[in-house]
Amino acid sequence: MRRILSELRSKHPLVHCITNYVTANDCANLLLAAGAVPVMADAPEETAEIAARAQALVLNLGTLSESRLQAMRLAGAAANRNGIPVVLDPVGVWASQFRQSAARALLREIEFAAIRGNAQEMQSVLEIASGAPCEPERFDPGELAALARTKVICTGAEDLVTDGGKTFRITSGDPIQKRITGAGCMLSALTGAFLAAENSVESCAAAVCAMGLAGELAASRMDTPDGNASCRNFLIDAVYNMTDEQLEEGKRLEDLT
Amino acid sequence: MRRILSELRSKHPLVHCITNYVTANDCANLLLAAGAVPVMADAPEETAEIAARAQALVLNLGTLSESRLQAMRLAGAAANRNGIPVVLDPVGVWASQFRQSAARALLREIEFAAIRGNAQEMQSVLEIASGAPCEPERFDPGELAALARTKVICTGAEDLVTDGGKTFRITSGDPIQKRITGAGCMLSALTGAFLAAENSVESCAAAVCAMGLAGELAASRMDTPDGNASCRNFLIDAVYNMTDEQLEEGKRLEDLT
Amino acid sequence: MRRILSELRSKHPLVHCITNYVTANDCANLLLAAGAVPVMADAPEETAEIAARAQALVLNLGTLSESRLQAMRLAGAAANRNGIPVVLDPVGVWASQFRQSAARALLREIEFAAIRGNAQEMQSVLEIASGAPCEPERFDPGELAALARTKVICTGAEDLVTDGGKTFRITSGDPIQKRITGAGCMLSALTGAFLAAENSVESCAAAVCAMGLAGELAASRMDTPDGNASCRNFLIDAVYNMTDEQLEEGKRLEDLT
Repeated sequence: MRRILSELRSKHPLVHCITNYVTANDCANLLLAAGAVPVMADAPEETAEIAARAQALVLNLGTLSESRLQAMRLAGAAANRNGIPVVLDPVGVWASQFRQSAARALLREIEFAAIRGNAQEMQSVLEIASGAPCEPERFDPGELAALARTKVICTGAEDLVTDGGKTFRITSGDPIQKRITGAGCMLSALTGAFLAAENSVESCAAAVCAMGLAGELAASRMDTPDGNASCRNFLIDAVYNMTDEQLEEGKRLEDLT
Repeated sequence: MRRILSELRSKHPLVHCITNYVTANDCANLLLAAGAVPVMADAPEETAEIAARAQALVLNLGTLSESRLQAMRLAGAAANRNGIPVVLDPVGVWASQFRQSAARALLREIEFAAIRGNAQEMQSVLEIASGAPCEPERFDPGELAALARTKVICTGAEDLVTDGGKTFRITSGDPIQKRITGAGCMLSALTGAFLAAENSVESCAAAVCAMGLAGELAASRMDTPDGNASCRNFLIDAVYNMTDEQLEEGKRLEDLT
Repeated sequence: MRRILSELRSKHPLVHCITNYVTANDCANLLLAAGAVPVMADAPEETAEIAARAQALVLNLGTLSESRLQAMRLAGAAANRNGIPVVLDPVGVWASQFRQSAARALLREIEFAAIRGNAQEMQSVLEIASGAPCEPERFDPGELAALARTKVICTGAEDLVTDGGKTFRITSGDPIQKRITGAGCMLSALTGAFLAAENSVESCAAAVCAMGLAGELAASRMDTPDGNASCRNFLIDAVYNMTDEQLEEGKRLEDLT
């Protein structure tokens, strides 16, 4: 997917996010920076209707509520009926029974184009999908991809992207991203936008490369006495200014297939 | 309304916003920048009580919920009983039946001092208010002003402000504002603050001029590698530093009456 | 508590906030800046479970809802059972009957390690706790500390911190902090993090000193044409870069005991 940012900026895909209120503003500005158009509706009365006219749907389990979960089920079903790619971000799914049973319902009812989380979250998703415990050291993203018939983005010190067939390792990014709230949420939202342009494992890898590169550019822009708040702005700014050429040159991507 | 910013900064009007969680933080900081005091309560149990002691009420349909709608109805009625100006921002009202029926109820029950939206939103509001379809090219802000007995702020490449009698065209602003989430929400919040100072069509026009000028100042402050996130901060900063003299000199306002 | 920032940055305490959506993002970034790990869950279905594994719990009455109140009651009880310090921020508690009855229920059911608010809020809390009216000029933080068996942080032109025995006066900070939404919420969240490191009145005083110093550093960093939005970022940045040495040298603390 060589020209994905140009494509986004010519097509302006509508990305419907049902997401937490902590980072919704950052996700919206990040999507606008990338060239997409965010819509953040989360009332069960309207999410099916809104998702049906979007080009991607992103479901994020942060600040989950019973109402927001119901909104996700209705939106996810509508997106699936209309062939619209759906991304799941299982934020802190290991942290409560409520989130686990929510994830179980969503995995049963909705076909996800991609699931994006850190290793602890993704291991928990695999346990929910398989119904069997999984040791952290034995977690295999490819197993989750096969079981849930989805693309998997597992982020951490290095990031793995796989659809069970092709697998990429990405080593972009900067440690300060762990000190910015919503860095993961923003990547999941960006993944939705990239999948709207092209629903492929390469698009997922490109989204991870873009966020990693934005993190590196933001960190390199920091000066005394900048901190994580300025860096959050620099990160969104970096996506706003990012070109396909810059992304192509700056990516740290290895094909492990 | 020549000294409206000085007036705001001496009176500190309380502006009660029932608004979406995506841009609530930006609206609050924008109101503080202008000299107003924001209060963001949205529980039906308390909004009538809080609206009754505010100097303006702003109702924003983004991330609408059944509970927030009920809160708006109660707050709007209380504001009307107490002569407090109420602003409606019909965010994405065309996007769902839920928002349309919400707007219908609010338009029936509440007297609005001003309604602020883009052309697509305002056309949809006119259709709801009149009960008849309206072609985009035939949308007339004056018709909505007369029908809903309100001041109308229709924003876009150029902005129109009218109360059905007087009409102003404003050509301030910068295209990057379309890439900042909440640019419209912030203008609606600012309109509430300006109406608290003086409830007039001139105040509405002044709010539009102030946001447009802030957008221009913010855009002119951008340097490599700033993007939309930095620009959002610059925009709020510009309102914080804006003087009445600067607003008077910098406005791009034409009286079409 | 001489090395509290170093301690936070080695222990990374989990701080569970049940808080308003207006400033949740700023509170999360502020906690990350300080070295803590924020979790912002507010569904009654999960808050007891999440609070039980946190190292501090912060309850904030902004944008209160019936559901969020129920979530607070369950989380507070779980925190008390597990010996986890709980902070109350009675945002605008004087503004509605709903907030007052919520505060009454929370004060009856939950043992707070600290309560943080401005003079108007704290006077209102005292009236709720005592069941008797209190004239503003006769408000005594020590009385509230004794009655509610809690540490009290009363912020304003100068800040008072007391547990009824020891009392500190802090004169740090900058007036611009009143123009930044969430400045109080952020201090309450930081207090939670500091109490996770050491549950003492000195920790509360240190949190107030840290926020005040951050405000001073942020204000001194402002240049033309910076305003309150840039200052918000500078404030979080200042906490991100703050060292124990800097805090020790920069604090303006007087022991009134």
